[in-house]
Amino acid sequence: MFNPFFKNHGPIKISEIIKLLNININNKYEDKEIQDIKDLSSANNNDITFFHSKKYKDVAKNTKASFCLTIDALKTFLPKSCLALVVENVLVSTSKITSIFYPDSINDNFDDNIISISDTNFKDKVSFGENVLIGKNVSIGNNCKIGHNTIIEKNVIIGDDCSIGSNSIIRNTLVKNNVRILDNCVIGKHGFGFFPIKNKNLRYPHIGIVLIEDNCEIGCSATIDRGSMSNTIIGKNTYLDNQIHIAHNVKIGENSIIAGQVGIAGSSIIGNNVKIGGQAGISGHLKIGNNVEIGGGSGVIRDIPDNTKVMGYPAKNIREFLRVNK
Amino acid sequence: MFNPFFKNHGPIKISEIIKLLNININNKYEDKEIQDIKDLSSANNNDITFFHSKKYKDVAKNTKASFCLTIDALKTFLPKSCLALVVENVLVSTSKITSIFYPDSINDNFDDNIISISDTNFKDKVSFGENVLIGKNVSIGNNCKIGHNTIIEKNVIIGDDCSIGSNSIIRNTLVKNNVRILDNCVIGKHGFGFFPIKNKNLRYPHIGIVLIEDNCEIGCSATIDRGSMSNTIIGKNTYLDNQIHIAHNVKIGENSIIAGQVGIAGSSIIGNNVKIGGQAGISGHLKIGNNVEIGGGSGVIRDIPDNTKVMGYPAKNIREFLRVNK
Amino acid sequence: MFNPFFKNHGPIKISEIIKLLNININNKYEDKEIQDIKDLSSANNNDITFFHSKKYKDVAKNTKASFCLTIDALKTFLPKSCLALVVENVLVSTSKITSIFYPDSINDNFDDNIISISDTNFKDKVSFGENVLIGKNVSIGNNCKIGHNTIIEKNVIIGDDCSIGSNSIIRNTLVKNNVRILDNCVIGKHGFGFFPIKNKNLRYPHIGIVLIEDNCEIGCSATIDRGSMSNTIIGKNTYLDNQIHIAHNVKIGENSIIAGQVGIAGSSIIGNNVKIGGQAGISGHLKIGNNVEIGGGSGVIRDIPDNTKVMGYPAKNIREFLRVNK
Repeated sequence: MFNPFFKNHGPIKISEIIKLLNININNKYEDKEIQDIKDLSSANNNDITFFHSKKYKDVAKNTKASFCLTIDALKTFLPKSCLALVVENVLVSTSKITSIFYPDSINDNFDDNIISISDTNFKDKVSFGENVLIGKNVSIGNNCKIGHNTIIEKNVIIGDDCSIGSNSIIRNTLVKNNVRILDNCVIGKHGFGFFPIKNKNLRYPHIGIVLIEDNCEIGCSATIDRGSMSNTIIGKNTYLDNQIHIAHNVKIGENSIIAGQVGIAGSSIIGNNVKIGGQAGISGHLKIGNNVEIGGGSGVIRDIPDNTKVMGYPAKNIREFLRVNK
Repeated sequence: MFNPFFKNHGPIKISEIIKLLNININNKYEDKEIQDIKDLSSANNNDITFFHSKKYKDVAKNTKASFCLTIDALKTFLPKSCLALVVENVLVSTSKITSIFYPDSINDNFDDNIISISDTNFKDKVSFGENVLIGKNVSIGNNCKIGHNTIIEKNVIIGDDCSIGSNSIIRNTLVKNNVRILDNCVIGKHGFGFFPIKNKNLRYPHIGIVLIEDNCEIGCSATIDRGSMSNTIIGKNTYLDNQIHIAHNVKIGENSIIAGQVGIAGSSIIGNNVKIGGQAGISGHLKIGNNVEIGGGSGVIRDIPDNTKVMGYPAKNIREFLRVNK
Repeated sequence: MFNPFFKNHGPIKISEIIKLLNININNKYEDKEIQDIKDLSSANNNDITFFHSKKYKDVAKNTKASFCLTIDALKTFLPKSCLALVVENVLVSTSKITSIFYPDSINDNFDDNIISISDTNFKDKVSFGENVLIGKNVSIGNNCKIGHNTIIEKNVIIGDDCSIGSNSIIRNTLVKNNVRILDNCVIGKHGFGFFPIKNKNLRYPHIGIVLIEDNCEIGCSATIDRGSMSNTIIGKNTYLDNQIHIAHNVKIGENSIIAGQVGIAGSSIIGNNVKIGGQAGISGHLKIGNNVEIGGGSGVIRDIPDNTKVMGYPAKNIREFLRVNK
């Protein structure tokens, strides 16, 4: 996952991690320093990983991680080089440990480390409106415009020839070249991801970013959430109309056209050359192929193969929808 | 109804009220002072009430109010201690009289009685961004954050440990402790309530508030309208995703989870531990039980009992929905 | 089309236009000055027009335009007085030519020609909040209010007794008298109109305006786009709830009531006394009659005659919808 923004606060001693998990384990590893928390396949021997479902057992067998958050029923799948840290709820514990590596990724309070663009070097380079605020770790290319009252919070890279409207808020976002983001947008805030716990839900970290490729247009009043463990991506030359909500981890391909008030739930992947009509909704964790057309108002609850036209709730073949409903 | 905000401009002489209603009645009561306008059951003998439908006839029989707005066909149900003021349209007249008791509750023009937070006592207590504005009758607890360009208009109480985002507008709202309200929200404005009258609709008063209980999270670009004659309530530890609209008088229970772009129409009551999928809509005046799950995209037009999973438009048992639509 | 705002940069020599189209044609007309680009019926002999579909052949026969963008298969329908300029894609070429007559109508970058209302003559006439900005070519009537952080960009006329909320952005809009526009609205930006071209879509001009008639109310977080070749119109005493999206060229009649989160796609025409329930969506280019009621959540994909109640997706007679779904 490409992520230029979130600082890893590791290494962290395994003894600290064990203490935080509140588990009993032989503490002979207490001086071992852990660099990062990663998934089973990308973790190295200085990392901790997590293993919560049997469907990953084959990956688990080959993990290079030295420590793994898991449950009793799964620990036998781990190699000898990896010590199982048995916990009650793997995902909650993963969230806790990720939080100590990436403490800045949990809460999205307003950025209190910003200054007026007039007090930055951008003042001679960017065309900007009244009351524009710029956070830390921001880069802006040539020939860009930023409208009134817009807040470029921390961790934003904007390419060349971009136009940002007024009253928008952007953070943890990489915007490539020739992108237009219109008014009243909120881009790069954490997604709607948490563990429901009675009386006090537990938010999990969002260490992904929003990546907006060349030539895109984002309509007014959009909300595009950054990813949790991967990035939210809008592909090249994809246009979004007004009042669209793109949840965390969603990936949209190139040359797609998405009409007003569409909502795409978390982790769904949309192909290239896709057209989505107004107010359509797409459930989470789906795969929508290339050259798909989704009629306005549709509710998509299953994967859609390439080159298909669908409509309805739930969405089905558009000819069948229109035949049944003529 | 708990309401710390709207000032009652009573007492008002009954002769003034009668004049405003433009009705003919024996004026021997002209010096009688009326304290308030209340519903049939809660009114006392210094109050005026209203009675517009036969289904309230049993309550009407026992009202303690001295005066009652009603129609000719209903006036015989009232006790002798209550004088019927017969009008053409009870609700329109009720609206008119409520307006003179609560003149500040009709129009929601921008609050022109606000000042920069830097000029208030909150400046040493609250962590705040640029251009934050504070209205009259505002209270803010300890350890709170308020983002850039946010306007806390008149009549707002915020508890401890709350985080308000940027570009949000709040009025007539009571926020308890440890609540997060994200960016671009508008909370506490009047609801979409008016009497349709050709060429010039008549807005009715909204004397309710918005009450947000402990540990809630309100996503970006939410609109939550205050109540008309009761309060709009978001229960403890309930989380709302982005772009959600909550209409006036809605009450949502505790530990509920509401996904993006959901809309809940006026006066509906949602239970505890309810999960609502993205883009679902709930019609007005419905009762959704506890532990209910409503699938994404659903349109709910009937009450839903406890412990039920529904999906579809109109929403029905989710197993049936999936069976019919497999 | 009434349009007080967009400046026509004509006349433009036909030789320039021909060069821009990159076509080969006898250049004996090169000094002829073209005043404007108009449709087939309204163009005069100093104008250029366009003809892209056989269904307009009867109008084409009688056009008074001297030049017409068209394709080879259609050019024979034109009168002798009109020279066919044969192009590959009539609408793309029309867009290009319109762009040179109306260059200000393509991109809606933030208005960098605005000043604080305190530095205008409006400061003594209008009741205004903090940080209000006013563009060029703006007129505001008597007894108006404009809330905090609101930006009245270029080309706005506001009548008497209007109330604009906070954090709203308005341009290219004519607001009549006694209109309320609430918070967080974006009104008058270009619509979602462009020619999809791989890797780099081509936006077409939007030379229409938004026209909001007397006594309207526009709820919080609305987006109302201006028209492309006609105006977007909200009729007298029509009320819009929160989070509504009105696309370009839509025309809504008088005394209509539109509930929260409704979306109306481009070029649809809605009659008088129409009621639309929450979250309903109306496809583009439809005609909804007078006195129509559309149930909440409906998806309207066909015209609806006067005096009809519909519900469902696709919307059908409401009795049938409720019978089938009881």
